[in-house]
Amino acid sequence: MANSKYEYVRLFEQPDQLLPNTWIVVRIDGRGFTKLCAKYGFEKPNDKRAIDLMNAAAKAVMTDLPDIILAYGVSDEYSFVFHKTCQLFERRASKLVSTVVSTFTAFYVHLWPTFFTGGLVDDVPLIAPLLPTFDGRAVCYPSVQNLRDYLNWRQVDCHINNLYNTTFWALVQKGGLDSVEATELLKVRRSGLGTPHHYQQLTMFEQGTFSADKNEILFSRFQINYNNEPEMYKKGSVVFRDYELVNPVNSTAAQAAEAADSVTEPPTLSKSRAENDKKRRAKARITIEHIDIIKDDFWDRRPWLLTGQPGTLPKQL
Amino acid sequence: MANSKYEYVRLFEQPDQLLPNTWIVVRIDGRGFTKLCAKYGFEKPNDKRAIDLMNAAAKAVMTDLPDIILAYGVSDEYSFVFHKTCQLFERRASKLVSTVVSTFTAFYVHLWPTFFTGGLVDDVPLIAPLLPTFDGRAVCYPSVQNLRDYLNWRQVDCHINNLYNTTFWALVQKGGLDSVEATELLKVRRSGLGTPHHYQQLTMFEQGTFSADKNEILFSRFQINYNNEPEMYKKGSVVFRDYELVNPVNSTAAQAAEAADSVTEPPTLSKSRAENDKKRRAKARITIEHIDIIKDDFWDRRPWLLTGQPGTLPKQL
Amino acid sequence: MANSKYEYVRLFEQPDQLLPNTWIVVRIDGRGFTKLCAKYGFEKPNDKRAIDLMNAAAKAVMTDLPDIILAYGVSDEYSFVFHKTCQLFERRASKLVSTVVSTFTAFYVHLWPTFFTGGLVDDVPLIAPLLPTFDGRAVCYPSVQNLRDYLNWRQVDCHINNLYNTTFWALVQKGGLDSVEATELLKVRRSGLGTPHHYQQLTMFEQGTFSADKNEILFSRFQINYNNEPEMYKKGSVVFRDYELVNPVNSTAAQAAEAADSVTEPPTLSKSRAENDKKRRAKARITIEHIDIIKDDFWDRRPWLLTGQPGTLPKQL
Amino acid sequence: MANSKYEYVRLFEQPDQLLPNTWIVVRIDGRGFTKLCAKYGFEKPNDKRAIDLMNAAAKAVMTDLPDIILAYGVSDEYSFVFHKTCQLFERRASKLVSTVVSTFTAFYVHLWPTFFTGGLVDDVPLIAPLLPTFDGRAVCYPSVQNLRDYLNWRQVDCHINNLYNTTFWALVQKGGLDSVEATELLKVRRSGLGTPHHYQQLTMFEQGTFSADKNEILFSRFQINYNNEPEMYKKGSVVFRDYELVNPVNSTAAQAAEAADSVTEPPTLSKSRAENDKKRRAKARITIEHIDIIKDDFWDRRPWLLTGQPGTLPKQL
Repeated sequence: MANSKYEYVRLFEQPDQLLPNTWIVVRIDGRGFTKLCAKYGFEKPNDKRAIDLMNAAAKAVMTDLPDIILAYGVSDEYSFVFHKTCQLFERRASKLVSTVVSTFTAFYVHLWPTFFTGGLVDDVPLIAPLLPTFDGRAVCYPSVQNLRDYLNWRQVDCHINNLYNTTFWALVQKGGLDSVEATELLKVRRSGLGTPHHYQQLTMFEQGTFSADKNEILFSRFQINYNNEPEMYKKGSVVFRDYELVNPVNSTAAQAAEAADSVTEPPTLSKSRAENDKKRRAKARITIEHIDIIKDDFWDRRPWLLTGQPGTLPKQL
Repeated sequence: MANSKYEYVRLFEQPDQLLPNTWIVVRIDGRGFTKLCAKYGFEKPNDKRAIDLMNAAAKAVMTDLPDIILAYGVSDEYSFVFHKTCQLFERRASKLVSTVVSTFTAFYVHLWPTFFTGGLVDDVPLIAPLLPTFDGRAVCYPSVQNLRDYLNWRQVDCHINNLYNTTFWALVQKGGLDSVEATELLKVRRSGLGTPHHYQQLTMFEQGTFSADKNEILFSRFQINYNNEPEMYKKGSVVFRDYELVNPVNSTAAQAAEAADSVTEPPTLSKSRAENDKKRRAKARITIEHIDIIKDDFWDRRPWLLTGQPGTLPKQL
Repeated sequence: MANSKYEYVRLFEQPDQLLPNTWIVVRIDGRGFTKLCAKYGFEKPNDKRAIDLMNAAAKAVMTDLPDIILAYGVSDEYSFVFHKTCQLFERRASKLVSTVVSTFTAFYVHLWPTFFTGGLVDDVPLIAPLLPTFDGRAVCYPSVQNLRDYLNWRQVDCHINNLYNTTFWALVQKGGLDSVEATELLKVRRSGLGTPHHYQQLTMFEQGTFSADKNEILFSRFQINYNNEPEMYKKGSVVFRDYELVNPVNSTAAQAAEAADSVTEPPTLSKSRAENDKKRRAKARITIEHIDIIKDDFWDRRPWLLTGQPGTLPKQL
Repeated sequence: MANSKYEYVRLFEQPDQLLPNTWIVVRIDGRGFTKLCAKYGFEKPNDKRAIDLMNAAAKAVMTDLPDIILAYGVSDEYSFVFHKTCQLFERRASKLVSTVVSTFTAFYVHLWPTFFTGGLVDDVPLIAPLLPTFDGRAVCYPSVQNLRDYLNWRQVDCHINNLYNTTFWALVQKGGLDSVEATELLKVRRSGLGTPHHYQQLTMFEQGTFSADKNEILFSRFQINYNNEPEMYKKGSVVFRDYELVNPVNSTAAQAAEAADSVTEPPTLSKSRAENDKKRRAKARITIEHIDIIKDDFWDRRPWLLTGQPGTLPKQL
């Protein structure tokens, strides 16, 4: 009785279920990482410890939430893809977003010492109140093509930013330019759109047309062949469950996409199977690779990503 | 150019701005805390370290986000109230929720050792993968009355749960009953609604009508006078900025509510003032108290909570 | 059985309930009325038949939906205000909007001959396929002040547009200018924001600062005193239930607003009373007036509009 | 200036754009048609005039809004399907729903005399205030399969209801039962789910398992072979643009669906083509047929419905 007179306030909670049968992407972004990078002395243009930590946190999120089929990370952002048949938390946006963000943050903070202390040079412990935090949002993509275009967008963005940053920091660290001069030099060569959220001016968004210029600067001034830069920085990080690769002759991304798009099963009925698949997915090893996900090959050889049906576990040696 | 052919995917991001001129409450809840409590040996019915840690994390969130006017916590949940004129993140629900959840989680994990190690008995370090995480949601309340009823709902819930849990654990820890017997004994005395998210069976929701029974059990069997239990457990924790209390004769909650409800200023115009107030709020000390927020007195004496205009800073000694 | 395998498609219907305890305004606008006005020979700047027809349709909507407390119309648009406690159609936006739009359209088409035929000069029958249609949307306003500001916005817009149109058409119809010349003449005197939806260029949105110029043009060139123009064109049309006016000494808009804003009753509990009030409202006469609703006086004397509690029925003569 | 101080109220208008790249169905339903049928003497179980009027109104809506690719009507409801690439009104839900509902209502009222007067027996003019009105809602379906399942759901519903109604009214009109007796007789044979919106008790929702019973009642008691009933009543009405049928050997629904689902073009870029297609669609004749749309054949022979690309106009004789 006592509580009932106030309980009407629950009526103000508005539903936020995401449209069924659509791919859900939860993307998280570091909050104020420019300041954080400066405070904790992240290396430029890329800090391996920081990226390894991002990847470790992402892997922990995927282990905790087997409904995630793939994650893609670059810089201080990570995108988590839930299969379109996913029913986790009844597909409530705020539940999905907050759970991913909280789990990612918990592991990022918890694992920080693993990556940022015990190094040859310096320990870099986290000191409050400047702690790493993330924000997030959920977006629905109705078709496989839309989903892949989203991931393509992020991977192209990774390339553009990394080429720019690599060149910028070579000019500053090895070329003796200050950051204003380096920015100025590169400005004439790019079309100048800025991304809203990224490490400082380093990660200015930039159109690929002018890639040639940067490759040339890197090579002629600093004898850096961009192609030889680490794949982790050039391609970003792809996290997924590892099953036996499939011969692409017998499986094409188009087929998997088609199969995925034409799933007729009503979402509600698939609950028990989803539960079962979830368990089978839990057994697979989660791997982190730095490879091209724009070309079909990645998807052709890993049909389980889009079908949502667990693949064949690799044989034990 | 390169990126533009994929960039159309941004069109799938749907806006989620919360209705202007409404009070925003972001409530976060511990995920799977039953398991977490067991694993880390939380004391029953209340673990002071855990609640102090919740409060420290909440205080850090309020320091980080000066738009929050008040927070109320109980058990593994915390509600953060943003003033209705708040324009933070353009009032985007996912930004607000994810930022609060991430910041809370970061501090909870980071501060864990402060509260759970170095004790007289045992150190209890966090061990992955079972880390504390939280989910969250945002709800809008149009009027001061609705907002206060929301907070009343939480504080009444705190009382009901704590009385139940105190009795339950007295029966188990001191009365020699096992948990089934204790549940059975208390079941006949309550109407049996369960809350979805709480510590184990301890925090079963329970109707106040039967409070008398529990008070009696506590007193007659265990000589415990519930009134003497710590306020922190009975009332929960209220976090807010501390200014000089106002003489309630000159300020009533009704007036403040009225003032708050009749704010005519368009949200967009108030941006600069909001910015200014934000800075002034940053100077105030954030306090944590365990007091009644249902009665008018709490609000009458702290008109700044509802007007959103910073109060008078206490004189320095 | 047969149907169940398809019935899962109902899961795709997403809820669209409007936030409780907020004033709901459903505004409808004529679609393509420029073309419609031309085709059916509407008089400029105002066609009395057309406005009377709008008003008749609005009155029919209010009779059909007693939850509407007030409607305000100007040109080819009408705003219908539902009380913030309204539970009609569980506050589902699409139900509310589509019902208002459909009812308005049905009466507009059905009553057309009443207003557009049988005149002294010509019958103007509706001829398919160019029929009058309307679109609509629902907006929530949390406070009385927001609601009144919305209505103020529409009534100020009415004034600005009507002054402009009256001047424009005087220049064209009596001053011998063509429409380009008249537009040009008035352009230098206004700041040039256009409203998206209105009768032709006549209803260009225009800032009040330059009202003086137009008043002067009207008076000096055409001996028209704008103040003497019909109230229906200058003020628009206000539709509401008519009870005995209240002495403003004993009732102020501020009080009514406060009373309205501090209604504590949970929406769910008020259902039976709402049902009862609905019946009582059905007995009141619906009146159409062309008066100022910006000043407090209108609201002070009609407290029932904001309290939502039916007033005193006028005594029968 | 004058208006700007109120114009902030526009900020309360919340966006309601529907997710891109999904099929939009706007379904409208008659409001209170039980009462309307009684008042205007609709024939039972089906009134040909009423259904012809529904179809005429639907055809007018499709002519007015070329973005609609197909409409399906039964009883007092009609579903309008917008292609998933549709950008009409920026896909705003309230604009789409209100425009469809208003246009449908305008034609329904305007065309009423064409169908309900001038008959052999009686003129049935519309008399206010009981006018026909409709409500509506928009639902998104991500895949072709989801869309077709939606339409299947409606056509199966049509069959179930019509068989029930035909039997019910035969029992009443020819069998001498009253409506209670007829309901009782049929009740034991059906599983009893009711649809929320339909003509009286006649259109009770009913599971297909028991179709045999009704067929038998109709045949044994009244010598009615249900198969010989008019297709319009058994199948409902399908409205679409008529192009040359395609040989199903060369075009399968699966292919069209696949083509439709894998459209990669970003919605924004397709605007000019959409504009062009719109014009071409405007030239096609709109036809109304009463055929099976559950089987693939309907879709195989009319690939333009799903591809959204206008077919070949039939040769002129």
